[in-house]
Parts: sequence; structure tokens; C-alpha cells
Amino acid sequence: MMQAAERVAALRSIMAQSDVDGLIVPRADEHLGEYVAPRAERLAWLTGFKGSAGIAALTMARAAAFSDGRYVLQLAAETDGSVWERCHMVEEPAALWLARAGAKRVGYDPWLISEEGLKPYLEAGLTMVALASNPIDAIWADQPAPPMAPAVPHPLALAGVMAGEKMAAIARGLEEQGQDAVVLTDPASIAWLFNLRGADVANTPVALGFALLGRDGHATLFMDAAKIPAATRAWFGNRVQIADRAALPQALAAYAGRMMRVDRLTAPVWFAQTLRAVGAKVAEGSDPCLLPKACKNSVERQGARDAHALDAVALCRFLHWLDGAQGESEMSAAAKLVELRAAQPGFRGESFPAISGAGENGAVIHYRVSPETNRPIRPNEAYLIDSGAQYECGTTDVTRTVWTGPETPPALLTDRFTRVLKGHIAIATLAFPAGVCGAHLDSFARQALWQVGLDYDHGTGHGVGSFLSVHEGPVSLSRAARMVPLAEGMILSNEPGFYAPGAFGIRLENLLLVETRRFALASKAFLGFETLSLAPFDRRLIDISLLTEAERDWIDTYHARVLDAVAPHVPEEVAKWLHTACAALPPRM
Amino acid sequence: MMQAAERVAALRSIMAQSDVDGLIVPRADEHLGEYVAPRAERLAWLTGFKGSAGIAALTMARAAAFSDGRYVLQLAAETDGSVWERCHMVEEPAALWLARAGAKRVGYDPWLISEEGLKPYLEAGLTMVALASNPIDAIWADQPAPPMAPAVPHPLALAGVMAGEKMAAIARGLEEQGQDAVVLTDPASIAWLFNLRGADVANTPVALGFALLGRDGHATLFMDAAKIPAATRAWFGNRVQIADRAALPQALAAYAGRMMRVDRLTAPVWFAQTLRAVGAKVAEGSDPCLLPKACKNSVERQGARDAHALDAVALCRFLHWLDGAQGESEMSAAAKLVELRAAQPGFRGESFPAISGAGENGAVIHYRVSPETNRPIRPNEAYLIDSGAQYECGTTDVTRTVWTGPETPPALLTDRFTRVLKGHIAIATLAFPAGVCGAHLDSFARQALWQVGLDYDHGTGHGVGSFLSVHEGPVSLSRAARMVPLAEGMILSNEPGFYAPGAFGIRLENLLLVETRRFALASKAFLGFETLSLAPFDRRLIDISLLTEAERDWIDTYHARVLDAVAPHVPEEVAKWLHTACAALPPRM
Repeated sequence: MMQAAERVAALRSIMAQSDVDGLIVPRADEHLGEYVAPRAERLAWLTGFKGSAGIAALTMARAAAFSDGRYVLQLAAETDGSVWERCHMVEEPAALWLARAGAKRVGYDPWLISEEGLKPYLEAGLTMVALASNPIDAIWADQPAPPMAPAVPHPLALAGVMAGEKMAAIARGLEEQGQDAVVLTDPASIAWLFNLRGADVANTPVALGFALLGRDGHATLFMDAAKIPAATRAWFGNRVQIADRAALPQALAAYAGRMMRVDRLTAPVWFAQTLRAVGAKVAEGSDPCLLPKACKNSVERQGARDAHALDAVALCRFLHWLDGAQGESEMSAAAKLVELRAAQPGFRGESFPAISGAGENGAVIHYRVSPETNRPIRPNEAYLIDSGAQYECGTTDVTRTVWTGPETPPALLTDRFTRVLKGHIAIATLAFPAGVCGAHLDSFARQALWQVGLDYDHGTGHGVGSFLSVHEGPVSLSRAARMVPLAEGMILSNEPGFYAPGAFGIRLENLLLVETRRFALASKAFLGFETLSLAPFDRRLIDISLLTEAERDWIDTYHARVLDAVAPHVPEEVAKWLHTACAALPPRM
Repeated sequence: MMQAAERVAALRSIMAQSDVDGLIVPRADEHLGEYVAPRAERLAWLTGFKGSAGIAALTMARAAAFSDGRYVLQLAAETDGSVWERCHMVEEPAALWLARAGAKRVGYDPWLISEEGLKPYLEAGLTMVALASNPIDAIWADQPAPPMAPAVPHPLALAGVMAGEKMAAIARGLEEQGQDAVVLTDPASIAWLFNLRGADVANTPVALGFALLGRDGHATLFMDAAKIPAATRAWFGNRVQIADRAALPQALAAYAGRMMRVDRLTAPVWFAQTLRAVGAKVAEGSDPCLLPKACKNSVERQGARDAHALDAVALCRFLHWLDGAQGESEMSAAAKLVELRAAQPGFRGESFPAISGAGENGAVIHYRVSPETNRPIRPNEAYLIDSGAQYECGTTDVTRTVWTGPETPPALLTDRFTRVLKGHIAIATLAFPAGVCGAHLDSFARQALWQVGLDYDHGTGHGVGSFLSVHEGPVSLSRAARMVPLAEGMILSNEPGFYAPGAFGIRLENLLLVETRRFALASKAFLGFETLSLAPFDRRLIDISLLTEAERDWIDTYHARVLDAVAPHVPEEVAKWLHTACAALPPRM
């Protein structure tokens, strides 16, 4: 692959012209989110590596591609070893590698990294040089154009609260904190604030753009006018001005001497740098849309229930189909599930690429099936399917692990499955006072595993948007969670797991809606969870001897609820299968 | 009380001379710990308020005394309302009060506040002026002299590791971090490092002093030479130099151009200020003794077991005595317990003033019995006793709530007691992987209460020293715990509770030793707890219908252990009582 070396050489000549002896190329776009448009796949173009987390670092003599533990094999397979050193970004961060490689002045695109992201480089003693233009863009001849999907209104019947009302509330918050305006760079925040949806990236229905919201409640949306249909313009009325991204520097310059709030974790550092350069004051504060967006209003909550009812029909049809399937593979099963979901009204695509792992592939936590790794789903093994959908009324994310049969599953597998299920139930049945954060609850999901010296190496749950990102902040159920208390209306996943490398993987995931709990005795506000996802847990994998009475009751009640909700909406043979799949557990001996 | 006004007037004239228009007088000594010597009770002398947390703030026109929710009544009772405004330090911090009262330049004693403690004042926009000498000391005619208790060796048979070994390990840590020396200001750290104990303050066997430890492993102890007997001098050998506190400025000046580690949370800000003034670099880093001190070595662990075996004898004798007692009061009961403890070998005093609360007084979480509040212990009520002792082999802290009888306790009380006990057992029986912090475990203690909408407003547990402070950092079992993982050898209290204001209080506390757990299945290190404290839980207060089989087993096994350990060492009548108190729970109906 001479190509790789040529591209690196071309970059080095730009580096020399820019008076830098180092360069970083992160896998990021100007919104620093999870999914990026093809135009922003600069890391993949440069190195060949297509994983979702990575960065490249260059000096005039060396070049390294970095990713994390999930991608060790893929990084090696996709990059040219004669050009690229392959590194683990946790064990040897790019900043450290550059410092050790002798770089002094390191170029970067200030649109593709946050102020917080820049910190490790500065701490490593590097002089970081913001480049005026992206060096990859200068040499990537056939770079795709920016996505131009239309930004369409998200109707009030789904959004629940008018954009004007949201903008006024955020503006009041700015007023209270003495801030003149806020920069919004996360397309999900912009989508929520303006009741807008788009299709610029995969899986998350957002339109890429930036916004400024002033303390007076007026906003400017920086987005190519061609992306904004007349209906959207009418929808905005005179509250939202439209401007081109090229107008951003001038718009920021108008804030000289005033105070602008910028999120140092999520906003490209270009904003703070530009504001400081024009003499504006930068107030550090998190994106003010994060918390209100996370707390779904009553319309969004009903939308979530509706989305899960729709999704349950597809999912139960899939589980029925899978139970009788022969000769299928991880890929064909995932495709079948998409086909069944696509038949549901309001379906707008997958909320993330499904994880479809049979046998030992189920143990790869972030497994992404590909033609190279695709494998048949065989009899008598565990099969894990983690998938989700976007409906215009809500976002779903659900995981089931099933036994393919026909033999009885081994005791080791049912033991582990049941412990994971106990953890899932422990979270689902919690009541807790207001003020508790995800970090305080995560351990409940692990206790049945901890009791026998087992655990799983991922968080228990993440926030989920309302027809928005399937991974939404600011809360999560995780030891490393930010100390933001759970609050009514938040949607979180509940997905404990267990993974036996080389053998099988188990993960059992439903989405939960945080709801108020009323107790006669309570002297303070209490919260609990309503389980949204509806699909049976494979009864063959449950070791009832490990369950308490309360756990058995929960499973039976949940299964009865699944049956009630789904059976009327599926073909008769599926309903019949569902009756068996949702039957009460056999009595304990 | 003309006195109060005169003292304030005298302070204001010093303020005028010092060119400040505000002043703070914290309840603190130069070591910023929980217990202070009489000489440092400046706040009490000035305001009359004797609580353990408080501060006074003055301007030229106004004066306010601050404490927290525990002390609202006491603050009002002990201070002169014609001189002192009474404020809640959480709701209106002194910094805010001063700013609102128009203070601009606020004087403070840099020995009595940490760099972190100074932050809120600076953030409130005040100019903070370090005073060259303490203004109270200038006007307090009969201020007590500094305590002069001898600093005595803590023998290797109890300390387990030689001081030289500890000093070398800390010095290696300084070396690795490029620090030339560290300032130690916490007397407990000094006591641990040098294997030294003292008696300068109540309840905690420390000798007040400061120390510098260099990366070369050599140390200077700043302490009045008269406090150091020849035996201690010999014990130090040539590794520890003795110097007077007056020599501190000169000793710090020697670090010009070098790097000194100072704990910004626990060290008086005087140190960082003086170091910066002489051109030394101040490295922020926590007190390096904190973590190794918290992880008890094998000798200290055995010492803790021995201390608890000794303490259990006194405690079980007390519970037996109490069961038959008539006409006793909160004060007489607490005195009886001290008397029984004092009969145990190695007893060196209470580790904190006992909380002895009958009936409604048990619901006051930080209740401190006094002649004014003392009340009889009556029949048919709950009585809570939280107490602890210092033995030369270890420190204890234990709480029991008992029913005085003779009638059957009400169902509401047994329900709450049993839920608290379930929480206690949930913590005691945990297994968890290394890396887990106290904030991740605290919720287990609350779950049985949360299920019915109840909770308690304090952490579940705190660290405990080894013949040192009964409240020891850096870990705790609390939602607000610092994110420091639990580690083998740490001692923590396990003390869930429930409080019905005006009616009763329940708290059930044992100390736990963090131990390694070995599992056949575990692929990583696991930890669990060994329960150290030995005393029966009042069986009359247990509602067995709320217990799982595993919880019943735990109680029966624990009670059998108490009986085995204690019965051979108590008078026959106590042993007989203990047999009944430790009997297996009746079968569940």
C-alpha cells in the first residue's frame, strides 16, 4: 500500500509549511459526537482504520495510529504496518507518544478537539499550534461533500414543548448566571432546543450546525441555508435567524467585552480561542440543554412508551423467528430484525448498528459483525443481539441473549444468565431518594455476580434521547458516572452482562424511565423506574433455584405485561409462541 | 453578658490597627483536626458557643456566629443575641455574610485555615489579609497554655512496621514525584509515621506538632523539646531531628528553589504562603501518610481484633447491666460503660464522647448528653448508645439500639429496626472487586429503607485509625466519599440508622476490616469485610418476617461468634444473659 506512505508524505510537507514538527488527526468532526459524516472520516482516509475511536499522530520521522482495547485487531488489520506504528491510546496516549518522539510544535485543527481534549497535550509539555485550515482537507482529493439532508420540524405533538418556551427557559438560566449568550455545538442540543430533526449522520436524526442563544431569548442557527426548507423557516418565525457557518467569526466578534458560555468538554476549542481573541469573556459551563433534554416531558415519555410498544412487536416477531430458524448467521439475523422493525409505523432507522454475536462472538462487548467475522448461528449455543431503533416518537435500545437449543443449556450458562438477570431486576425494582446519582446505583446490578467473584467490564447503563442520540448525557448508571442526580423523566438503559471470552456473552437490556414514587412514609421525594422495553427473557436460561420469590414475581409480572402488550399485534403463530415464552416460571422444587 | 460585647470591641480595635474591616475566627487549631486543645477554643471564648463546628465573622458594625443544622439550638442558647447574629454556615456561609455586610479586607490567622478553606472567601470577592499574630490570643488574658503531654513511643509490637521503613517508603514516593520534601501537619500522620503517641487533645492519642520529611528519608519534628522524653529521643535515633516550632520559617526558607508537597485540604495555608514567599515551589498533593495509615498492616489488624475482643467484654457486661437496670439516666448509663471499659487492660480512654440517647433523644443524630438534656431511661422505649474506646492495640466504635421493655416493642419500631439491620447485613456480607469506592457501596445499606420510602441523613461509615483517630480518612462509606478505592487492611464503620424525630432513633454499628476474598472463578482481585465488633443485636427488636434466610443465618452465626468470644471472659450471670441474647432466632412461621 504505497498510498499510505504518500498520504503521510503529503501531510509532512504541509507540516513543514506550517512550521510544526508534529500533527494530530483525531476521529472527530466539528461537533465532537459519536457519529460523523463521511466527509469527516479523515482518520480512516489517512490510516485505513475505520473504528469509532482513534487518533493518528505524526512527527517528521514517525507516524502512529491509536485506538483502544476494543480495536486492537482491527487497527492492525486496517493499517499499513510499514507506515503506521499501532498504539493503545489508554496505555500510551498520543500526547505522550508525541513528547517521547521528540515533537515540540504540534499542529491540530481547533475545530476537531475540545479545550478539555487539548489538556493532555499541553500537560505533556507540547506547544500546540492551531492550524488555520485542516491539512487533510488540503490533500484529500475526493473528500465527500458535507451532508445536506434537510432540517425538518419535530412537531409539537412529539416534542411536547414549544421551541420558544425552551429557548426562554435557557435564556433565563443565562440571565441568572450573568452570561450574555451560549454557544451550542452539539447537534442533539440544537435539535432539542429548536424542535428540529435531520439526517446528516447515521443513527442519530440530527442536522449538523451551530447555534448562539442570547440571554434575550433570540438565537442564530449557523447552517447552510440550502438545508433549511421553507417549512422549517416558517416554523422558526422570527425567533431564530439563519446564518452561514462562515458568519460565525463575525458573530462571535460582536461579543467583545461580553460573557459567552462555552462547554469545555463538548465544544471545539476554536470557539473559546476565537472569543478570547476578540476580547469576549468565556464562561465555562456545561451545555445548558443537556439536563432539560435528558428530562423528558410528558409527551416525550408517552412517545417513549409508544416507541417501545412498536419496537416490541418487531422484537417479539424476531425472537419467534429466531427460535425456529436454521442456517442463519449473525448478519442474516441482524438483517431480519431490521426488516421486521422497518415494517413498524414511524420507523426511521436503527439507533446504532446492531451487535449480533453468536457463541464466542457474544463475549466481544463491542462486537460489530462484518462479512469477515460473520459466523453461523449454530444449535446449542448462546446468541446475543443488542439493537435499537429510531421511531419519530422515541428511541429504543434492547438486548436479549437466547439459547438456540434444542438441547438443555449447560448449568454454567444458566447460572451466569440468572445472575445477570438478578442484577437487571435489582435495578428495575429500585426505589431511591432524589439526589442519588448513577454511580450510587450501578453496584446493585453487579451484586449477584460479585457474590461469586464475577463482574463485567462496562457500565450498567447510559442515557437515551427522545428520537435523538441513543447515548445521551449527562447521567449514566456507572461507577464513573458524572455526579448528576437522576431526575424524573430521564431514560436510562439497564444492561448488566457477563462475558466468558472464547465461549459466550450475556447481556440483558431494557430501557428505564425515571418516575416519581409516592410512599405514605416518605418525608422526601423518591424516584423509581418504569421499564419501557417489552420482550421475554429466555426462560430456558433461567435457573429458578437462584431466584428469590420477589424476583420470580417480577419476571412473571413482566412477562404477563409483555404478552398483554404484544400478543394482540402479532400474527397468530407469534402470539402462540409468545404465550409459551411468557408463561409463569415453573414452581420451585 | 457585657463580656461578649467587650471582647468584640477589643477585637475591633485590633482590626482597626491591622487595617482590616472584617475578621474570621474559626473553631480550629493549627492542625485543622476534629479535637482541639483548650488553648485553641478561641471561638468558644469569644462567642460562648462550644459546638464542634463553627466560625465567627465580624465587621466593624456587625458580628455573627455560624454553625450547622446540628447546633441550631445550642448556638442560640450559648451566644448573646444582643451581640451575635446566629447563622447557618451551609445556608449562609461566613464568606457570603461578610461580603453582604460590606467587608472588603478581612483578617484571618493563616495557621487556622487551609488553602482550600480560604477559597470561598476569595470567590466572594473579599481581600483576605493574613494576620501576623492571632488577635484573640492578644486579648485572651487567661488563655490556657499549649498542652504538654509527653510524646511516647508506640512500640513495634503494636505498630507492626518500623518508623524508618515507613519514612523510607514515603521518601521513595516523593522521589518518584520529583518532590524534595513534604510538610506534615496532621498529628495523626506524624503519630503514624514516627510510631509515636501522645495525649495533647481529647479522644485521639496524638502529640501536637509538625514535621518535614525529605526525599532523603530524613525528618525534622517541630515540637517543644520539653514534650519529648529521653526514651522517645533514643527511639528516634539520628533519623528524626527535633526542632522548636519557632524554627519552622527558617526550615522552610531552606527550600528556596526546591519543591515542597503541601496538602491544600489539611495543611494551614501559612505553609504554602511561607514557602511561596521564600521562593520554594509548592506541589499540591495529599498528605502521603493518609493512604498507608488507612491500610493497617497485619500487626495492626490483629491489634484491632484484640481491641474489639476487649471492648466486647465491657460492652456485653454493659448491655446485661442495662437490661436489668432501673432508675438510670443517659448520663449514668454512659458513665457505667466507661467504668466497665476502664476495667479492660490497655484501655486509654473513650475514642469520642459517647452518644447516649433515650427515646426521642435517640433521634438527634449528633446528640451529646449534658446535665441540661439528661433524661431518665424509661421502660418501654428505645435507647441508643454510640460509643468507643482507645486501647493501645486499637480503636473501637460501636452502636447498639435496645428496647428497655418489659412490654413487647411496637411493630413500627421493629419494622424500622429490622430494615436498618438488613442494611447493616447487606454491607457486612458484600464481596466486591478492587477499585470500588465507598460511594459505590453506601446504597446497599439503605435499600431496605428505600423500599418503603425511608432513609437516613448521614453517611453509612467512616474510616477508623489504629489507636488513633476514630474518624480517619481518606475513605468512607458515603455518597459523598472521595473516589479512593477501598483496599485491604482499611477499617471502616458500618452504621446505618433510622430516626423518627421526637420518638426514637436507631443506629446499628460495627467496625469492618477490609480483607481479600478469594474466589475460584475470579479473574481479578476481590475484597470483602471481616466484622470486628462483637455484641448482640437486640432480638426483641427483630421482625423475623422481614428477613431472608441468608440474613437469618448471618445473625445467628454472628451471635454464636459473639457468645464464643465473650462468654468465657464475663461473670457467670453475664454469660447466662449472653446465652439468651445470642440464641438462634425463632423459626419463621
